[in-house]
Amino acid sequence: MLKVGIFGATGYTGAELVRILVRHPYVKITYLSTTQYVGKKYSDVFPAFKEILDLECSALDLENIDFDIAFTALPHHEAYKIVKPLLEKGIKVIDLSADFRLKNYERYKSWYGEHPFFDLTKSAVYGLPELFRNSIKEANLVANPGCYPTSAILPLYPLLKEDIILGNGIVIDSKSGVSGAGRGLSLKTHFCEVYGGFKAYNVTQHRHLPEIEEVLEGVKNDVSVIFTPHLLPIKRGILTTIYAKLKETELDESGVLKIYKEYYDKERFVRIFTDELPTIEGVVGSNYCDIGFRIDKRSGYIIIISAIDNLTKGASGQAVQNMNIMCNLPEEEGLLLPPLYP
Amino acid sequence: MLKVGIFGATGYTGAELVRILVRHPYVKITYLSTTQYVGKKYSDVFPAFKEILDLECSALDLENIDFDIAFTALPHHEAYKIVKPLLEKGIKVIDLSADFRLKNYERYKSWYGEHPFFDLTKSAVYGLPELFRNSIKEANLVANPGCYPTSAILPLYPLLKEDIILGNGIVIDSKSGVSGAGRGLSLKTHFCEVYGGFKAYNVTQHRHLPEIEEVLEGVKNDVSVIFTPHLLPIKRGILTTIYAKLKETELDESGVLKIYKEYYDKERFVRIFTDELPTIEGVVGSNYCDIGFRIDKRSGYIIIISAIDNLTKGASGQAVQNMNIMCNLPEEEGLLLPPLYP
Amino acid sequence: MLKVGIFGATGYTGAELVRILVRHPYVKITYLSTTQYVGKKYSDVFPAFKEILDLECSALDLENIDFDIAFTALPHHEAYKIVKPLLEKGIKVIDLSADFRLKNYERYKSWYGEHPFFDLTKSAVYGLPELFRNSIKEANLVANPGCYPTSAILPLYPLLKEDIILGNGIVIDSKSGVSGAGRGLSLKTHFCEVYGGFKAYNVTQHRHLPEIEEVLEGVKNDVSVIFTPHLLPIKRGILTTIYAKLKETELDESGVLKIYKEYYDKERFVRIFTDELPTIEGVVGSNYCDIGFRIDKRSGYIIIISAIDNLTKGASGQAVQNMNIMCNLPEEEGLLLPPLYP
Amino acid sequence: MLKVGIFGATGYTGAELVRILVRHPYVKITYLSTTQYVGKKYSDVFPAFKEILDLECSALDLENIDFDIAFTALPHHEAYKIVKPLLEKGIKVIDLSADFRLKNYERYKSWYGEHPFFDLTKSAVYGLPELFRNSIKEANLVANPGCYPTSAILPLYPLLKEDIILGNGIVIDSKSGVSGAGRGLSLKTHFCEVYGGFKAYNVTQHRHLPEIEEVLEGVKNDVSVIFTPHLLPIKRGILTTIYAKLKETELDESGVLKIYKEYYDKERFVRIFTDELPTIEGVVGSNYCDIGFRIDKRSGYIIIISAIDNLTKGASGQAVQNMNIMCNLPEEEGLLLPPLYP
Repeated sequence: MLKVGIFGATGYTGAELVRILVRHPYVKITYLSTTQYVGKKYSDVFPAFKEILDLECSALDLENIDFDIAFTALPHHEAYKIVKPLLEKGIKVIDLSADFRLKNYERYKSWYGEHPFFDLTKSAVYGLPELFRNSIKEANLVANPGCYPTSAILPLYPLLKEDIILGNGIVIDSKSGVSGAGRGLSLKTHFCEVYGGFKAYNVTQHRHLPEIEEVLEGVKNDVSVIFTPHLLPIKRGILTTIYAKLKETELDESGVLKIYKEYYDKERFVRIFTDELPTIEGVVGSNYCDIGFRIDKRSGYIIIISAIDNLTKGASGQAVQNMNIMCNLPEEEGLLLPPLYP
Repeated sequence: MLKVGIFGATGYTGAELVRILVRHPYVKITYLSTTQYVGKKYSDVFPAFKEILDLECSALDLENIDFDIAFTALPHHEAYKIVKPLLEKGIKVIDLSADFRLKNYERYKSWYGEHPFFDLTKSAVYGLPELFRNSIKEANLVANPGCYPTSAILPLYPLLKEDIILGNGIVIDSKSGVSGAGRGLSLKTHFCEVYGGFKAYNVTQHRHLPEIEEVLEGVKNDVSVIFTPHLLPIKRGILTTIYAKLKETELDESGVLKIYKEYYDKERFVRIFTDELPTIEGVVGSNYCDIGFRIDKRSGYIIIISAIDNLTKGASGQAVQNMNIMCNLPEEEGLLLPPLYP
Repeated sequence: MLKVGIFGATGYTGAELVRILVRHPYVKITYLSTTQYVGKKYSDVFPAFKEILDLECSALDLENIDFDIAFTALPHHEAYKIVKPLLEKGIKVIDLSADFRLKNYERYKSWYGEHPFFDLTKSAVYGLPELFRNSIKEANLVANPGCYPTSAILPLYPLLKEDIILGNGIVIDSKSGVSGAGRGLSLKTHFCEVYGGFKAYNVTQHRHLPEIEEVLEGVKNDVSVIFTPHLLPIKRGILTTIYAKLKETELDESGVLKIYKEYYDKERFVRIFTDELPTIEGVVGSNYCDIGFRIDKRSGYIIIISAIDNLTKGASGQAVQNMNIMCNLPEEEGLLLPPLYP
Repeated sequence: MLKVGIFGATGYTGAELVRILVRHPYVKITYLSTTQYVGKKYSDVFPAFKEILDLECSALDLENIDFDIAFTALPHHEAYKIVKPLLEKGIKVIDLSADFRLKNYERYKSWYGEHPFFDLTKSAVYGLPELFRNSIKEANLVANPGCYPTSAILPLYPLLKEDIILGNGIVIDSKSGVSGAGRGLSLKTHFCEVYGGFKAYNVTQHRHLPEIEEVLEGVKNDVSVIFTPHLLPIKRGILTTIYAKLKETELDESGVLKIYKEYYDKERFVRIFTDELPTIEGVVGSNYCDIGFRIDKRSGYIIIISAIDNLTKGASGQAVQNMNIMCNLPEEEGLLLPPLYP
């Protein structure tokens, strides 16, 4: 039985880790850290988990460690403070913050500020299993990808790798449910300010932009993306619509489909859509990344659509997928939850 | 491996059966009937189930039967037509319609009209496992309870049995998500007619009223309920608020709690709430029935609140629970899905 | 032109006052008080009002008064502090808080705590125009009713006055949109904690209970109500379902209808429904209180359903209706907004 | 008093025309056509309009005409059949269908099929008042723009006219509420298939694409757009995000702002946003088109965001604006409805 600790267990990604891990056959949650709810039972914080996880929440404690692997579901700049001591004690870490995703320090600094433990980044692996599975297997520190980057990189990677689209001027128009903004209080997530509405936010300035670019640059030198996130008036799910110029106008949909099949046919958590296009309702509560596309002959663009649950494949589900890989467990263990339809 | 057939597999209760059964370790779905989608793959009807259940949908066929147990998720008056031949072939049946829930023919007729196979009702067991587990174990035909009745009977039964509330004038004010109305098209379930709104419907005339009364009459002779269902602008969940006059004014909350604990403490799918009260968000996607209550000293009434997911504990989850009991499987198998929070 | 000041202009009832008053032909808003947004243009606080009301928000200021009538849309215990000085300066006041609604000090104290200016209550009129129009006409201080009480008193008043229902054991099951909880931040109004869910709250303990009882006691000595508010996952609207025992079992629906018509046929903002029942979607954005009912012959109860927009007839619309009456303007002026359907 | 007839009065654009026109001081609705509800009072079809418009609905009747101007809110291919006889009788017509929007017959035919009365198109004016006000003034037949085209053309027109963006490869990513799909029944608008979800639809194939291109071609020869509509799980509102390549990289935000101000500063129903960006919640229920933008220096793209209420500025509000212009009434009459916030 693998013992698991969750730092930041009372946020939404923490709760999603719990939802998955309590039914994981090889795992036992032994530690839950929180700042606001120390001493309360987890099920008192979240009545939905009554009689499912009644473990008591603890304050941050790096001394009395009783787990083999840790998920750090903390804000950036909070996460890096505890990752180092954990690693030093031989604990494997899957960090859900942005602190270890970027390899280029200048980039990190310009988007996030200083990072006193940036050297740790060298050994951190970007935790997108479909692309970097082998490195994840060996890693002690995995930087779990951002939700938007997961939804953008998975569909773009094969097309850039096969060099069928222009790397410059890729438009990524993303729409996310509100849980992506976390459980902290803000007018932006007040029910009456969201319900029945819709808006873009952080236009040209969202921190997931450099993350997307850095990973894609690993495939192809010359990449620039225009990224616009929007806030959907729903709880869970990201749908990303991507516009890229095709290099060859003769390429048709079957050609692109062949590429996607080649990359993802054996992937348990990537589903390639043909007749239908992916939708958020098709993935909510599940660990799938659904991908579909259309070619617009008139303009020579390909329009790619991907859908994930931002808390699952976009965060905690992917984190558990990484844990399974790092710990030599079957990769899909605990993650074969069908979407909650309807 | 238990082979399972689902009649009416392309409605919402059918889809919920699939969601649960595809991850049930002792079950294999071998047959899916539909009227509209014959010949289509299940995952083409519901893209959410892509690569999860790709079995082809069939027309109704009572000749070539390749399953051990059948779920009939059909409208009333459709269901009774196929239950008889199934039973005759030795197939166990869990019927999700209303056709075998009432034992009193006059009552059935006045609410539903004629029923040519009403004699079958004699051997049918009302499938509320917490109350009738032993009979379910022996049954070949289980009448799966309605969603509203499940949410009303479970909290009322212990209080009537212990005779602490008046049986007359019990007010049951229920609020249900839209999936309870099914997948058929109607202005009443058109998105723009529901979103942002709220209404009562079938006031004094809902067909779940006689079902509630008949089961409660089995506990106590003199019962009359006033039942008002409302349509919540959400997909899943029922919250029922019940008002009953306490017989003794000295009874306090700890006394009532003791009763509930006595009846339900060992029940895996009933959770008794004390500090908090049950909510729909606390049960969505799960098979729990949550129950809580407050005593209003001023008026001498008890206010009881219960919450279920209408598609799970209110329909398909309970049906699988019944299947497990009928087939000597662990009762909770396949059903330990945590609520989808947030 | 009537000059109007709004205290607490940047909450939801403040914004609703603005929405109505900017199109009121006899009114000019000259003052907006706020605590958080001093010095900002109203349209910068609420971009929806861009080019509609660009007036600057001010700090609380009782010295330099440039208005004839004031709306105080502040929390209780904040409101009473400023009502006295305003009245002393000859300003008419419509108070949207609870500070002047109750006439019985013991009751006020047990639900709200001390009130140093309770003597002012003597001259305050409870601002339900359909019942107390003549007193409102003469008043300098109007206590604008609570949203739940408006939805409960209007339908109950005629039936109690005509003595056709029992006053004891009236069950009032209310469901309200989230805007009733205000614009302040709280986990209870965080989008992800509300969307797709539903819950009861403050069961047996909501502060609108004594308000309902006190007004109804004015009609009939012996009244006790059981009141349960619920939180609907929508922005606007209250639907209240009331259960009362009829005194005479012979009374039929046409008899009750006759009573309602007698009381409300000439009321511009009360609509009596017969074939259909009231719904929230039928009143959102409007100043109507819709009332309908059914008699349950089996049990001898009448089930009454009322619907209002909690921000309009339940707060700011009614406040403007009171202003019109107090200032000898046509009562419906500015208020004939059709519901926003769909 | 202008007498107005509405053809197709019982769809959503019909209801929105009613919502606006019942409070229009110079207008009287004298005729409502319907196919499904002949003989019913309008307020029985839509209880929200009880005591607001109790006029009876009629069957289609082109003989006994008692109105001066007609709104045809019918599907394409239905609309053109009645526009001709109406014009011949001297009735001015504002057609909300697509039948008279395109001037190029080949284009019309390839997207919509045959059109036996296409010659009428010659005299039809495209009813976007901000661009074609003078022609509308003289017109007897106005083709009211589509909702998506309104949201795309208003922000793009000035930038193309001033030649600061490339006409080729403009990406238009639009998101619309469900009311845009009308009141007809379809699984696509079933509540449970929409709520909590999000999807793209008609990718590369939506009929508003040629409409956008044809109008923009009127400004600049070389235009090609990639247009992707999405279905938002809300009732009302369109937010359109547009990506265009700037021709000159030196142009900054103040330069673009100057252009927008020049074109729209005097327009009552176009609001240019600077600090904030437009949102759907900022326009719901109103006739505004809000426009804002950001320049992405890194890539040289401008990202423009526009928001409208699809039923108001995107359909019926704009239609009334056209009526006012055609009939020499103040253009904003009846249309100064503030957004319904919150």
